[in-house]
Amino acid sequence: MLKPSQTAYVPFVSVENMMRLVHHIGLEPMLKDLADEIEADFIRWPLFDKTPRVASHSDVGVIELMPTSDGETYGFKYVNGHPSNMKKGLQTVTAFGLLADVATGYPLMLTEMTILTALRTAATSAMAAKWLAPEGSKVMAMIGNGAQAEFQALAFKAICGIEEVRLYDIDPAATEKCARNLQGLGLTVVPCKTSQDAILGAQIITTCTADKQYATILTDNMVGSGVHINAVGGDCPGKTELHKDILLRSGIFVEYPPQTRIEGEIQQLDADYPVTELWQVITGQAEGRKDARQITLFDSVGFAVEDFSALRYVHSQLKQAGLFQDLDMIADPDDPRDLFGMVQRAKTA
Amino acid sequence: MLKPSQTAYVPFVSVENMMRLVHHIGLEPMLKDLADEIEADFIRWPLFDKTPRVASHSDVGVIELMPTSDGETYGFKYVNGHPSNMKKGLQTVTAFGLLADVATGYPLMLTEMTILTALRTAATSAMAAKWLAPEGSKVMAMIGNGAQAEFQALAFKAICGIEEVRLYDIDPAATEKCARNLQGLGLTVVPCKTSQDAILGAQIITTCTADKQYATILTDNMVGSGVHINAVGGDCPGKTELHKDILLRSGIFVEYPPQTRIEGEIQQLDADYPVTELWQVITGQAEGRKDARQITLFDSVGFAVEDFSALRYVHSQLKQAGLFQDLDMIADPDDPRDLFGMVQRAKTA
Repeated sequence: MLKPSQTAYVPFVSVENMMRLVHHIGLEPMLKDLADEIEADFIRWPLFDKTPRVASHSDVGVIELMPTSDGETYGFKYVNGHPSNMKKGLQTVTAFGLLADVATGYPLMLTEMTILTALRTAATSAMAAKWLAPEGSKVMAMIGNGAQAEFQALAFKAICGIEEVRLYDIDPAATEKCARNLQGLGLTVVPCKTSQDAILGAQIITTCTADKQYATILTDNMVGSGVHINAVGGDCPGKTELHKDILLRSGIFVEYPPQTRIEGEIQQLDADYPVTELWQVITGQAEGRKDARQITLFDSVGFAVEDFSALRYVHSQLKQAGLFQDLDMIADPDDPRDLFGMVQRAKTA
Repeated sequence: MLKPSQTAYVPFVSVENMMRLVHHIGLEPMLKDLADEIEADFIRWPLFDKTPRVASHSDVGVIELMPTSDGETYGFKYVNGHPSNMKKGLQTVTAFGLLADVATGYPLMLTEMTILTALRTAATSAMAAKWLAPEGSKVMAMIGNGAQAEFQALAFKAICGIEEVRLYDIDPAATEKCARNLQGLGLTVVPCKTSQDAILGAQIITTCTADKQYATILTDNMVGSGVHINAVGGDCPGKTELHKDILLRSGIFVEYPPQTRIEGEIQQLDADYPVTELWQVITGQAEGRKDARQITLFDSVGFAVEDFSALRYVHSQLKQAGLFQDLDMIADPDDPRDLFGMVQRAKTA
């Protein structure tokens, strides 16, 4: 066979190389870097080509494509959400993503994104809390101790200065796993037997559970004034975590309203219920937390711009770290109109 | 580093392996197989989860994602269209695609699709012509002799029994390239100096040009009664090939109206102008060609179901041919909730 030219190759970051990259940079520094990249892209929010993600739903889960572009670079993520996977020994969420050049449409990088999504989700949550949580927050309740939990805890430590995490999960084995993983990383870790216990003294409440249905992880009487709620788990039509009454008492902040109205906690509210876009808080166009007594709610569903930031960050680290392999993914005939000739010549070469 | 488990691996078909597969099966047999697969999926059209492709447009081109699902398997294609790429020595169209398991959301196969798209586009055109072209068609005019031209010519030979192709392109070098590539493949090849000359005696007229703007490749007086027009090139908002008057004289057949009304030749017509869906002709629910004098027009833009058929076909050939490599693309912790532990353990492993 003929050897493909360099244009045919797309740098690919495997799971193994993504883990190497994380340890090359360090977990907390990488979470901070990602939060900075995401914040920088939220500041230039209006110039992104935005669309609600394209979801293909089945009885057991969802497969989504999340594209966006800043006019120079295009990125998209493939991601699934299958709560029943865990019973089969599989991940609830797996993902991969691609960055491409808008000027030519040629791919620039293909990468695993299961790990990268966990990192960018935690970085986004912590970045939002930096703008919305009460000043001097030191304690976070972490309800739902699955695959995302430790990343959230570390991001809130690195970006918001959280010192104590209080863990609760309906499955004690998940809490044990989470507490074990967080040992020795500089956080006070308090496993709790109930969610009421977990939220005791917490200024920030993170909910991150993964049922594909309406659930009430927090009821109204559990939530006192002045807290910041980081609602991560409700991210599908028909999948929510908070009682509607909490929403009605909160200042609600979202990523991209057309997507959040379909997928977020606010699917429980009227389509014109007022919410604030997070990017406007960051640019100073909208008010964030009003006062120390307000409940702020970041109704996070995960938006394509966050993946774009993460993809660009990994791409910027690629050459330096050398942690990629070349993938022969793009047919590249010598004469671009002669695809047929290239195929035919491969027969005899 | 820890060695990933088998679940972490996604079979990947490189450009080189796709070319091997084509020659392993044979170009004409593979075009026939693909036409059969596409026809079979058109027969079960109503059960597909269908959406117009998600396009990100820029001044110079478009990047598109084309997802669909039959409820058991999910597929999508990434594809760009950049007419100005050719001047840079790059392909106008490049593509790759993925097949995934709906039950778990896990990828089943990643593959190059630049070559596969050329094959499936030609197979779709010829399959449609089998249903719509006048009986006993032997001569095809091929206007636009770029990357798709030879694939079209061979597909119409293999599937419709075309014996003579008459070539025309505004760039004589493209016609030369196409004529050279088609030598010795069992077709009478006639290079022509004008499009008028090319359509002389042709029962089928294929237009496949790649300008991102309204163009008039065929004018009304060029098209006589009884021909079948296979319009391949008009596949973008603002990009058409045929004069509107031709459309008004033709029976118009399309893949998926919500997408064709945006991208196809019929963007020149009112939004409710009657068109027939090709799948209904194949299932007998709608009439195809009315009589020998009717002009039939297949206003083809390319739809996700055709890529799905092609992806499934390649997947079915994978194991047999052994033409793939394993890609470490999916993070696969022993305990699916312990993604963090997997990342942390990789540090010391």
